[in-house]
Order: sequence, then structure tokens, then C-alpha cells
Amino acid sequence: SRSINLAVIPGDGIGQEVVAQGLKVLSAVLPQDVKLETREFDFGARRYRATGETLTDADLDALKKHDAILLGAIGDPSVPSGVLERGFLLKLRFAFDHHVNLRPSRLLPGVATPLAGQPAIDFVVVREGTEGPYTGNGGTIRQGTPHAVATEVSLNTAFGIERVVRDAYARAQARPRKKLALVHKNNVLVHAGHLWTDIFNKVGEEFPDVTTEYMHVDAATIYLVTQPERFDVIVTDNLFGDIITDLAAAVSGGIGVAASGNINPAGEYPSMFEPVHGSAPDIAGQGKADPSATVLSVALLLRHLGYESEAARIEDAVTADLAERGTTTRTTDEIGDALAVRVAG
Amino acid sequence: SRSINLAVIPGDGIGQEVVAQGLKVLSAVLPQDVKLETREFDFGARRYRATGETLTDADLDALKKHDAILLGAIGDPSVPSGVLERGFLLKLRFAFDHHVNLRPSRLLPGVATPLAGQPAIDFVVVREGTEGPYTGNGGTIRQGTPHAVATEVSLNTAFGIERVVRDAYARAQARPRKKLALVHKNNVLVHAGHLWTDIFNKVGEEFPDVTTEYMHVDAATIYLVTQPERFDVIVTDNLFGDIITDLAAAVSGGIGVAASGNINPAGEYPSMFEPVHGSAPDIAGQGKADPSATVLSVALLLRHLGYESEAARIEDAVTADLAERGTTTRTTDEIGDALAVRVAG
Ligand SMILES: CC(C)[C@H](C(=O)O)[C@@H](O)C(=O)O
Ligand SMILES: CC(C)[C@H](C(=O)O)[C@@H](O)C(=O)O
Repeated sequence: SRSINLAVIPGDGIGQEVVAQGLKVLSAVLPQDVKLETREFDFGARRYRATGETLTDADLDALKKHDAILLGAIGDPSVPSGVLERGFLLKLRFAFDHHVNLRPSRLLPGVATPLAGQPAIDFVVVREGTEGPYTGNGGTIRQGTPHAVATEVSLNTAFGIERVVRDAYARAQARPRKKLALVHKNNVLVHAGHLWTDIFNKVGEEFPDVTTEYMHVDAATIYLVTQPERFDVIVTDNLFGDIITDLAAAVSGGIGVAASGNINPAGEYPSMFEPVHGSAPDIAGQGKADPSATVLSVALLLRHLGYESEAARIEDAVTADLAERGTTTRTTDEIGDALAVRVAG
Repeated sequence: SRSINLAVIPGDGIGQEVVAQGLKVLSAVLPQDVKLETREFDFGARRYRATGETLTDADLDALKKHDAILLGAIGDPSVPSGVLERGFLLKLRFAFDHHVNLRPSRLLPGVATPLAGQPAIDFVVVREGTEGPYTGNGGTIRQGTPHAVATEVSLNTAFGIERVVRDAYARAQARPRKKLALVHKNNVLVHAGHLWTDIFNKVGEEFPDVTTEYMHVDAATIYLVTQPERFDVIVTDNLFGDIITDLAAAVSGGIGVAASGNINPAGEYPSMFEPVHGSAPDIAGQGKADPSATVLSVALLLRHLGYESEAARIEDAVTADLAERGTTTRTTDEIGDALAVRVAG
């Protein structure tokens, strides 16, 4: 009999509320014969304030025993900026080699967008997750003096670029339009940019049916608001991916519906699925958070584990729910309930 | 009697066409008693292909003798990516210490925006122009092998941050809303991010009447499409500024109307004014380019040189022209003529 052994990290702020709905929908969608086991981990601001710990080696060992991880959100104003981001979120992505950070953007029918018209948005960003300016490399001298100097070093390897570029080509090849765009800034960041571009072109020879283009990151932000329908698959570095996926989420219905996966494709470590939004402390505990992004992250999780039809059922349920929702305001719990009913039905 | 000694760099592609209109409007707006002297410099792809040179020491000496520089656009597909950008554009910004890269965004009446509604957009981005990931610092080892590693180093100094932050505070203080946002990514780029944040907060003590906020660059892209009216002045690093000003241009009428100044506030070197758009080789030589961004850059140039009423006349003329233009298509030349008539009238 089949089973899913899931690590659950509700985290901070609205993380708690949205993860509860994600689990509700997950339970409802799974066939009877799949045994779902969950273990909850109390990571985030509360634990940091209590113990000073963000993510220990023992934590990583415990997490490693699971098939996948579902995360709500991490971050709280009581903790200095960077401590939980670097000490937990990024530490986990790096420790578990989550090099494919998958962020699909679809503008679903009936969903409000800040863009005029209702452009046909349906693309996925493959963001590199373990390199670039995210490695923490850098430092500061003479801090607090007029002579301070701070550096940030972006690290880029052929190994790291090639594997994520290859993943993106394969995803593009599997989609009807078979288009792949490399987004970088190779006219300024020439060292990293040329390495990315060279590898992008070289790997492309293995995928002759994929149409490619190169775009500077600044130009990409323009196209994301003027012609978002032109994109199919985008591959990009860690920082550019961070920036353009928030913009992509904003134009395709907002971060209330933006899902993401931090994927280790070979399965050496459990992959982690999380909404793109943060912990939103300003609305936490009020039942106002939209759990759709978390529920869609559960769909990505199921697809990653091979439950394709269940993943599709969740996506259809969210699509239908959003189309029906209109301007009615429902609580986090009500939306979760409605989605659970739909996926079970 | 007064005089303006202007260096003119038409550059590549549509640069030639739009600069001609900028000069036409400049001549038309200047009072009789101001003597305008221009010297044209043939920098860009043509010269690079002919001589292999982008910008020599002698060029810099010649440029230095002017009160200001008007640039069209630099860049051509015949030149490898990065050569002219690094070898000319960035070299000039660095050599002339253009540390205040000023990029105003205003959605003028009647101008199309990809955003639904007609949000009241009126903000200015103060982008640092001489530091960050733009210094060219970095390198590649084992290029072309599976073991290649490429780095990019972002350099940030208290000196460089403080002067641009102070400039931004002063600009915010001079505006009715007196708001200043720092945009960075201080939860990930902690070294540079904390230096920026500390200095931003410290300098803020001298400007108690300016309301400040901090925003991550990814969140800023969301607000730029969902609530662009919230921004008044933004100060940010070189790369983040590059990215968000293209997005800002896109939401406030497109890069056809986005002007910019590369400013050395103390006047040690001539400042340079240029449209945000590039050389657009696909439409070059067809009279299709909108010269408005260049003409608005001329207004920034005049304001920088102390010709405030002339700058305002140009801005009013462009505003009126855009409002009247509607869907009629006019050539580059026709738009330039219409603007010249307006500013003279
Ligand atoms: C919280 C932060 C570290 C994170 C990132 O920059 O990757 C977030 O913005 C995201 O996109 O998942
Ligand atoms: C062409 C390029 C070097 C330049 C930059 O990145 O600064 C351009 O994008 C700009 O914004 O002026």
C-alpha cells in the first residue's frame, strides 16, 4: 500500500492558518489506500525567540526522513531581518540542494489582475535555488564607520547552471508551446552572464524542438506587464528569479494564489513546497489569508510524488472556486472547506 | 551672456533619430541670449567596428570640457553583448562619477498604461550609479569546462551609499508628499543590505519631516503594479534600480517616455542625460521611434543646468502633446516638430 510521509512546517503568521487548509485538502483528495502520515515541526520565530535556534543538524536529520515538506511561511517582525531567512529558509534550500525552484504563473478565469484586459498568462519560472548572490558569500569591513565597505559575491558554477537549465529545457519540451527564455543581465554581469548564456546555448543543442530567447532582466519586467502571454518557460538565476516571480505572481492574480516548489529532482533529499507569499503578520490570526497558494503548492507536491490526477483535481478545484468566488469575502477556513469538498466530490 | 556647451552622443539605432529631435526642441526652448554650442561625438557600434575603440582617455578629456552630455542610445546586435555596455555606457558613468541616476516616472494624462484604471503615478527613482554589482568585479575560472566557476562581486561603500541616500532624502524633502522608500534585499544580501539600511536610517535623522519605509525589491515589483501611487521617492542600488526603473517605465507609459539623468551633483564632471530605452535596432531608421523620452531627458538636463522654467516648458509641451496625440501615428520628426512649436509658442 502507498504512503506519504510528510513533514509539515506551519511557521509564522498566516503560515499556521494556510497550512491547516493545505492539509485539509490533501487529506480530502488522497485515495483511501494512501496512508498519509504527517509530522509537524515548530520552526520559525517562536522557536528562535525561545531557543535561539533556527535549524539544527538534528532538525535536518529529522526532516530528511520524509517524502516531502509542506511549509507555510517563515518570518516575523520580532526577529531581525535576515536571521530566519538565511538561518532557516535558505539554509534548508541549500542543505537539501533544492536547485529547481519552480514557480508557475497562471491567470485563472475570473481572477483579478492589475493589468488591463485579461491576458492569457500561463508560464512557469524555473529559478535556480542554490547559487548566485544567495550563498551568503561576502562581508563587511569598518562597519559603522564612514569607511565601511560591504561585498556580496554571486557564485555561479557550470555544474549548478547546467542542471537547472537542463531541467528547464525538459519542462519546455513537455509543454505545447515548447518555448524557453533565459533571463539574466549578461551585458553587465558579464562573468556570470556569459557562463549562463554559453551553457544555455550549449544545452539547447540537445533540445532542437525548443524555441529559445534571451532577455535581460530589466526588459523581462517590461514584458511581464505588457506581454505576459509571450512567456512559456523562463529559466533564471536565484536573485532574478526571486524578483520576477513576485512580479509574475502580482500580474497573474496576486501572491494569494502563487505556489512554489523547492525541488531536488533526483530525490536525494525531500523537496519542499510553499506559497510564494510570506507570513503577513499584519493579517495573521484573523482568518483573512487566502489559502489557495498553499493548496496549489500541495498540488505541486502531489505531482512531484507522482500523484498526477490528484494534483490536477486540486488545481481544477482552485480554478473553479476562484471563478465562482467573485467578490464574496470568505474566511481562510471557509475557502479550505470549499476546496476540500470540491476535491472529494 | 549665458551659454551651454553640450556634448552630443547620438549613438546607435534610433539614438540618431531621437537625439535630433531633442536638439530641435532644445534650440526652440532656449531664450535668445543663451548661446548653445554642441559638439557631436561618434561613439557606439560604428566606431567600435571601425577602430575597436569604445571610449578612450582622449575621449573622456574631450567630453569633460562640456557643461552636459546628451546621449541617444548605445548598442547594436553586431557587437557582442557587454562590450559597448561595459566599455562605453558604464565606463562613462564611472569615469564621470555619475552616482545619482535619476529616473522620474509620471503617468501623464491620456497616456496608455498596461495597468487597469489610470493610477496617479508620480515618483522618482534615485538609483545609485557607481557601485553595487556594476563594478565589473568578478571573474571566471575553467571557462568552457564542466568545472567553470564565475563570480560577480557587488561592492558597496558607506561613502557611496551615504551620498546617494542623502541626495534622495533632499529630493523627498523638496516634494509635497515627502516620502522616501529604500528598496533592497536586506534579508538575503545581508552584508550590503545592512549597510544600506543602517545608513538610510542614520541619514534619516537629519530629515525628520521625511516619511520613510523599507521594501524588499521583490515586494517593490508587486507594489509597482498594484499600488504605484504609493511611491514618491525611491532610493536603491545600481542593479535593483536598473530593474525597477524599467518596470516603472512600463507602467507609466512605456519606455517611449522614460527619461533619465546620470548626475554628478557637485559638478566635478558633466552630467549625462539619456532616454531609458535602448537603440531598438528593429525599428531604427524608420521614423517610428518616439523622441519624447529624449526630449524629457533634455528637460532634466536643463533643470540640472539651472534652466528651470525652460525645463518646465518642455515637460508641459510633452504632456500636452501626449494628451492630444491619441491614437494618431506620427513620425519621430513630426513629434519633434510639434514639440518644438509648442515650447517656442
Ligand atoms: C524570504 C526570502 C529569503 C525568499 C527569497 O528571497 O528567496 C522569498 O522572497 C522567496 O521568494 O521565497
Ligand atoms: C545598457 C545597460 C548597461 C544599462 C544598465 O543596466 O544600466 C541600461 O539597462 C540602463 O538602465 O541604463
